[in-house]
Amino acid sequence: MAIVRQVLGDVLRRRRMAQGRTLRDVAAAARVSLGYLSEVERGQKEASSELLASICTALDVPMSEVIREVSDDLAVLEAIPSIADGTVVTSVERGVVAAA
Amino acid sequence: MAIVRQVLGDVLRRRRMAQGRTLRDVAAAARVSLGYLSEVERGQKEASSELLASICTALDVPMSEVIREVSDDLAVLEAIPSIADGTVVTSVERGVVAAA
Repeated sequence: MAIVRQVLGDVLRRRRMAQGRTLRDVAAAARVSLGYLSEVERGQKEASSELLASICTALDVPMSEVIREVSDDLAVLEAIPSIADGTVVTSVERGVVAAA
Repeated sequence: MAIVRQVLGDVLRRRRMAQGRTLRDVAAAARVSLGYLSEVERGQKEASSELLASICTALDVPMSEVIREVSDDLAVLEAIPSIADGTVVTSVERGVVAAA
């Protein structure tokens, strides 16, 4: 099954890059460390609810919108059998979602 | 801002109760402790991505569907100014969402 933190990380990174902003800028605005934000974006660390809220505020995007995008991406991944049945999501597969 | 883990906990509890299942049953099916599932449902503990996947499998519901419901509930909460501006979500306010 797809891993939520990886999908969430991709969504947050896409949002940040669409705004042409750096990790440093968003991390400072969200009052989280650059390393933490980077790990969250790469799906290596779970974002706590509080820090997710801070990151969404820093990106000026409603949390519901970010979570909706996570749901949409998960639905795409769930439709791919090799991913849905428990395979760890690879960067190539994540690219499929990014391109969707 | 509404707290994701509380909204997620409410969604998971509603799903479980709609199936007429006990905490014990779902915890066993998801291979998590009853105490952990109970804390997640009450929004007291963040569910890791892996355990959220296990709980969704135990409930036989796609993760994308659970996350979609979280997004919908968050959107309702975000539309209530007193909640959106940083107030902790109370059980009464959570009732509003449950009734929506």
